[in-house]
Amino acid sequence: MTQPQTTTQAITVALLGGGTVGSQVARILTEDADMLAAKAGAPLRLAGVAVRSTDRRRDYQLPKGMYTTEAEPLIDGADIVVELMGGIEPARTLIEQALRDGKAVVTGNKALLARHGEELSAIAAEHGAQLAFEAAVAGAIPILRPLRDSLSGDRVTRIMGIANGTTNFILDRMDSAGADFADALAEAQELGYAEADPTADVEGHDAAAKVAILATLAFGTDYSIDEVSCEGITQITAADSAAAADAGYVIKLLGIAERRTGQDGAEGAVLRVHPTMVPREHPLAAVRGAYNAVYVEAENAGELMFYGPGAGGAPTASAVMGDVVSVAERLVRGGPARVRTSIASLPALDAEEAHTSVMVVLTVADAPGVLRRVAGVFEGHGVSIEAMRQNSATAEGESEVQLRIITHHARQRDLDATVEELRDLDVVRGVVSVVRVEGK
Amino acid sequence: MTQPQTTTQAITVALLGGGTVGSQVARILTEDADMLAAKAGAPLRLAGVAVRSTDRRRDYQLPKGMYTTEAEPLIDGADIVVELMGGIEPARTLIEQALRDGKAVVTGNKALLARHGEELSAIAAEHGAQLAFEAAVAGAIPILRPLRDSLSGDRVTRIMGIANGTTNFILDRMDSAGADFADALAEAQELGYAEADPTADVEGHDAAAKVAILATLAFGTDYSIDEVSCEGITQITAADSAAAADAGYVIKLLGIAERRTGQDGAEGAVLRVHPTMVPREHPLAAVRGAYNAVYVEAENAGELMFYGPGAGGAPTASAVMGDVVSVAERLVRGGPARVRTSIASLPALDAEEAHTSVMVVLTVADAPGVLRRVAGVFEGHGVSIEAMRQNSATAEGESEVQLRIITHHARQRDLDATVEELRDLDVVRGVVSVVRVEGK
Repeated sequence: MTQPQTTTQAITVALLGGGTVGSQVARILTEDADMLAAKAGAPLRLAGVAVRSTDRRRDYQLPKGMYTTEAEPLIDGADIVVELMGGIEPARTLIEQALRDGKAVVTGNKALLARHGEELSAIAAEHGAQLAFEAAVAGAIPILRPLRDSLSGDRVTRIMGIANGTTNFILDRMDSAGADFADALAEAQELGYAEADPTADVEGHDAAAKVAILATLAFGTDYSIDEVSCEGITQITAADSAAAADAGYVIKLLGIAERRTGQDGAEGAVLRVHPTMVPREHPLAAVRGAYNAVYVEAENAGELMFYGPGAGGAPTASAVMGDVVSVAERLVRGGPARVRTSIASLPALDAEEAHTSVMVVLTVADAPGVLRRVAGVFEGHGVSIEAMRQNSATAEGESEVQLRIITHHARQRDLDATVEELRDLDVVRGVVSVVRVEGK
Repeated sequence: MTQPQTTTQAITVALLGGGTVGSQVARILTEDADMLAAKAGAPLRLAGVAVRSTDRRRDYQLPKGMYTTEAEPLIDGADIVVELMGGIEPARTLIEQALRDGKAVVTGNKALLARHGEELSAIAAEHGAQLAFEAAVAGAIPILRPLRDSLSGDRVTRIMGIANGTTNFILDRMDSAGADFADALAEAQELGYAEADPTADVEGHDAAAKVAILATLAFGTDYSIDEVSCEGITQITAADSAAAADAGYVIKLLGIAERRTGQDGAEGAVLRVHPTMVPREHPLAAVRGAYNAVYVEAENAGELMFYGPGAGGAPTASAVMGDVVSVAERLVRGGPARVRTSIASLPALDAEEAHTSVMVVLTVADAPGVLRRVAGVFEGHGVSIEAMRQNSATAEGESEVQLRIITHHARQRDLDATVEELRDLDVVRGVVSVVRVEGK
């Protein structure tokens, strides 16, 4: 066995943020110091933790003198800055300053990266500084290195991710217990899986930020969260969930990024987040509760999936520490920093360019010619039907039946127009459910 | 968008091997040259392919002049050597020679790495040469970088992998169609999933090589295939498969590497391959057909899973090309090579030190006191019983019943001794099935 070559010169780490993840990072840096020194090739020394209040009790309590409200002097003395404050400011300014000083930065701040990742990468490149951010996507799931390095000789065609544990938990409860959205949300809040203000989760904003970062890595093009079309799960009803289950599907909030050819014939990427039915036998369907998963399709590799805890202090801290050790290793070894550069230009296309399919459940009059007229609406928009099933009467003695229609893939705009026209059709008494379908 | 900085100086690639994977690597190098140049930062030029016969028709045919039977001159002119010949010699000698010349080597040769990985890594380190081998484990599944880099700030406690597609296909057929081993193997051979001589797959040797490489990365200690205890699937019967299904499990051939404390109190690693029952709701249970998956448990990250095609020309070539691009990027960028060094010493323990549980199905006399006597045998070896179930009589009118017992975790040696004693117990008419259980 080769002995590790540990230099005596310690690498100094400044930690910004003392919350759930920050506390776990402080714990690992303290308790696993020997293992980290062996892996990094030099001891990692935690210089201090910048926090808003030095009085607050932390999940992992360091000696009082380790906490400071002054981030800048802490950064000045550090080789590696670990930013776990969250939010745009002051995180952005502090990270920029550290990168300009040539310091390595590790961040788990997805909101910041999804808005300002391109600028930050450019600053890092300009100053030869390392910028690492594995923890910003899908918690502890190692997905950035596989996308950036392992698949660098391949062409990713599509990513579908369950990138938010809160919504996955809620949809899971709706599926397995028949709960409606409000009750499932209340349960998630009680169990601590959802925040008091669940907007960022249930409206899909958190997932959208992750899609922007994943797509940037997968397609070598910088995307912002503003280019991700986003629809949350607040409109999903117990009826939607039951209809999906009845058809052999389960509803998941998916973040999807895929290569498409736009209307003008040029290649681009469609980035979207929306509730999606996936077949029960699809690997994503088995992802339960607060777990996350990212499903990747590549030209040569085929279908890959990465699965793990999507959040939580210790799992996210594991991802942060993986970056810290990698960054430290490079500082020890020397050599130029690896910088992210855009190597392609795959512009974001309008979400209406997406190709998807939908399941539509309608209540219609139980009369001759109805099926033909409904089918005619689909045909009129160039949408072909994969399966149509007529259920028994919706209420005893009434002259109504339910129709369940699953389409083949079609353009989103054509699917939207089809549903619009169905709503106005006189034989249609009601549109019970419209949910997109992927992974058939 | 930053334009890629492509140097004009091409990087020369020598390809050793023109089989299924080699042909796909040649295709990608040829057809995706622009994409690869953008990602690597320099054009990659395929100098030639060393093959045994230049006359054979290839899956992807290059101009005839590209093939040669002389590997050494090809290697001499190359910056990167891609070894896809398989087998120990001449691969080992050629790789050693290339590394000594400071050339970067990319290999997918698991048999070679599982036996001589330590020496090759040492030679690479000594000569500052890069050695990359993502394709040697689990085909296209990106698992080496996650283990080596993403989890470098964490401590992996256990890996369980479905690391062989042939056996997974066979066990899947036995589970889903009730086939017996011989019929399922014949079907796999007909479909091209199993070789005419299936020994390396069905006896678990292929999986054992992968376990040695995975454990080396996960535990930072060099292991050889000889340290992996190995049991194949040839003894698995349709009755085993049915008994597992009846109890809510599915049988998979798992490669397992885990940290354990040995009898002397020192920490070590137990490395083993054997048929294993996993609960149907476990993520590994859903891995079907020729897919592979690696399930990782780490102290902070928790449970992770990596899923994808375990073999095949294009998927394996994707993994090879990921390495080629990464290696080329470093050649372009400059800086010292990243070398693998052992950072821990976690000696391989005897497989009898493994902690596992088993399901035992027995045919016993239907008489008073039998349950007590059977339970007494377990107790005598310190093995506690998690569940015992008595099935109805095995044959009508006979005075026999079947007992199904699932144990808690215990030392392998104690489980073995328990089963031995059960075989000799006068009230036991027969031992129908003994299969280890994990993932409960």
